Amino acid sequence: MALNFFLLLNILIVSLALNVGLIVKFVFVEERLKTEQSIPMADAQEKHAHITPRTHMATPPPPPPSSTAPAEPEDDGQIVVNVDHGDPTMYERFWLQMGDKTTVVIPGWQSLSYFSDARNLCWFLEPEFAEAVIRLHKLVGNAITDGRHIVVGTGSTQLIQAALYALSPDNASEPMSVVSAAPFFSSYPLIVDFLKSGLYKWEGDARDFTKEGPYIELITSPNNPDGYAREAVVRRNEGILIHDLAYYWPQYTPISSAADHELMLFTVSKSTGHAGSRIGWTLVKDREVARKMIKYIELSTIGVSKDSQIRGAKILQVVMDSYTQVGNSEKGEDFFEYGYNLMEKRWKQLRAVVKQSRLFSLPEFPLGYCNFSSRTFAPNPAFAWLKCEGEEIEDCEGFLRSHKILTRGGEHFGGSSKYVRVSMLDRERTFNLLIQRLSKIHP
Amino acid sequence: MALNFFLLLNILIVSLALNVGLIVKFVFVEERLKTEQSIPMADAQEKHAHITPRTHMATPPPPPPSSTAPAEPEDDGQIVVNVDHGDPTMYERFWLQMGDKTTVVIPGWQSLSYFSDARNLCWFLEPEFAEAVIRLHKLVGNAITDGRHIVVGTGSTQLIQAALYALSPDNASEPMSVVSAAPFFSSYPLIVDFLKSGLYKWEGDARDFTKEGPYIELITSPNNPDGYAREAVVRRNEGILIHDLAYYWPQYTPISSAADHELMLFTVSKSTGHAGSRIGWTLVKDREVARKMIKYIELSTIGVSKDSQIRGAKILQVVMDSYTQVGNSEKGEDFFEYGYNLMEKRWKQLRAVVKQSRLFSLPEFPLGYCNFSSRTFAPNPAFAWLKCEGEEIEDCEGFLRSHKILTRGGEHFGGSSKYVRVSMLDRERTFNLLIQRLSKIHP
Repeated sequence: MALNFFLLLNILIVSLALNVGLIVKFVFVEERLKTEQSIPMADAQEKHAHITPRTHMATPPPPPPSSTAPAEPEDDGQIVVNVDHGDPTMYERFWLQMGDKTTVVIPGWQSLSYFSDARNLCWFLEPEFAEAVIRLHKLVGNAITDGRHIVVGTGSTQLIQAALYALSPDNASEPMSVVSAAPFFSSYPLIVDFLKSGLYKWEGDARDFTKEGPYIELITSPNNPDGYAREAVVRRNEGILIHDLAYYWPQYTPISSAADHELMLFTVSKSTGHAGSRIGWTLVKDREVARKMIKYIELSTIGVSKDSQIRGAKILQVVMDSYTQVGNSEKGEDFFEYGYNLMEKRWKQLRAVVKQSRLFSLPEFPLGYCNFSSRTFAPNPAFAWLKCEGEEIEDCEGFLRSHKILTRGGEHFGGSSKYVRVSMLDRERTFNLLIQRLSKIHP
Repeated sequence: MALNFFLLLNILIVSLALNVGLIVKFVFVEERLKTEQSIPMADAQEKHAHITPRTHMATPPPPPPSSTAPAEPEDDGQIVVNVDHGDPTMYERFWLQMGDKTTVVIPGWQSLSYFSDARNLCWFLEPEFAEAVIRLHKLVGNAITDGRHIVVGTGSTQLIQAALYALSPDNASEPMSVVSAAPFFSSYPLIVDFLKSGLYKWEGDARDFTKEGPYIELITSPNNPDGYAREAVVRRNEGILIHDLAYYWPQYTPISSAADHELMLFTVSKSTGHAGSRIGWTLVKDREVARKMIKYIELSTIGVSKDSQIRGAKILQVVMDSYTQVGNSEKGEDFFEYGYNLMEKRWKQLRAVVKQSRLFSLPEFPLGYCNFSSRTFAPNPAFAWLKCEGEEIEDCEGFLRSHKILTRGGEHFGGSSKYVRVSMLDRERTFNLLIQRLSKIHP
């Protein structure tokens, strides 16, 4: 009797494992196929004019869940190294190693309605996603959520536009001025002006802004592209600030304090690497501003994918569980630690090769104490703002392209063409090729 | 030996069933809770100014997968019947009955990249979603896909705006005129004008449009709100047409021929009822128009949720399998047949109570042969365009509200306030309450 039961139990366990194994295997094969197609592209946030020419640059698919770092073949100098983009595929291996812990299962009858929570001002916000966001900020300590409204968006790109709509009066005689200090995120001018809105208008570098009257200043901190912590530069009473904190996470920079601004933007794309889900969120103090942002998202897309919010909630929960659950903190399960170690390693490698080259330079960052990791370290930004030091090199992007390294030139960020932005977020193979290639460039 | 194997096999089957059962049960409980919150809301597409006042109107959750129609309590006249919205919860029961056939499983390492298919002009389009869309149109015969580019969007609302951006010259001296014949979808004026774009401008009822020069005409066929088949009304050479075919599916209207227009819009919200996934698609002939639409979606949201595209592909595949797979066509598995039977039944009930009331009237539709169902029938539109016939009733929406029936007044559609739009897509309980309530209104 006891033996039968024991047998039954064993076989049950085997079959359960079998199910999970099969699902995992099946989906992984699918993903391998998809990934092999999708690697070559340039970064969507950046490549507005660059999609087509870059569709044939090969980088390899991610390793299987079990594998460790793949053997690196010697760089023959022929492979195009595309670090122009900020596609966060660096995190793929971590999620592969997590196996099915973060797998979401969504049945066909779920989420038919347009609505997530009728009682919430943000009626398309999935309650479990909102809860996960609040718990995550409390755990990491990077932003204050008390007294804030959460507005979810189809990525933070949609939320920036929702904020511009919400903060610009609809009865003004002329469009609201929108500025950001150079070097600024190269998409800002495009997303502000592409519809020729009568509500707001791009006015360029905040440092050159002298126009009278109200204005919106976009503050990205840590900054894309150069990684420095940022504050407002215009500093006038009529100024309204939008804080884009997409990179204010402990794998990139010390969490010195909980951000406490009027309107703060975050995205899963850069926090956990799930860019394909298109989920971002805003923490906003003013109820009327939140209401107008929600109206924008209603008119723009009638809410935000529930499937992706449900998946986002699951992923954030797993990230948090590795810190809060007992016996669950073995190496490889601690997401921010994994991210920090990888970024630290990559920046060390990049600084070493740059120093040896005597052709380039990189920004230096001050040490800071991170309240989350209880560690003192200098930022390891998602992008490297690389400068070509050679007198004769005026076009750094072109110079690197001649060595088959694709970067984004400084002029796209309102800066100098002696600078380029280099993504630090790509797969290990791509990053290793970058280091090998740079090490071969001599004056 | 053989017996052991047989025992093993049996227990395996039991445990597999157990797993599925548990997953299904777990998610269903979640959904019950969520649904109870989300029912009260008005239709997102419609309720721009109406969210808050309607958050406390109760309608019941959907039945459990196993159940048949719930027992209808006698209408005490106190429950608010909200048929203002077009939330497609009518289909919930069908998907409940389908159990886990349409369940999607997405692991944490999938879809991290911004990109779906580098080789496709629409680089954020999931290949299996594109394939499912083409197969579905070929099966139903409602649109020609050959020689078309597929552009996926965050619902067709985003795609309409992408089309306006793509079809409006960016160097014109004044904004492109946008028109539609009244009664037109109440969101059109709002989504065209809310950003005060310098590219395009709402010019109202196409029948009153006399302005010289190029223009865009929005043609919704079958039309929302009145259900009639539509063609262009302005008919000038400088006219560019956008065909919104969201309701051109065999549960609503006979599929008389495969639509063959320059730019055609569809959405899963109204075809399968999965509005919460926010997935729509465009079939567009001109490559340059497709490219500009893709650029719009890149600048607006950097692509479209991959999770929802993967789920949409699965759901469309299951819909098609019920027609193409042998032994899989028992009652309740044929989606369009289910939808047609329910719409036919609801329209019969509504016409009967309207006829008996002598206070209201409904549009009459001609019979048509459906090439998909090989059946001749009159359209059963997703919305009923109800007219108050009583001399003294000038405000039909107000009159019905006094009987605790919430509808959308004709003036929101550029029509007369003697008309209201009534949703035919809500849950059975809500629709039955509507019929009971209308039957009690006498002159």
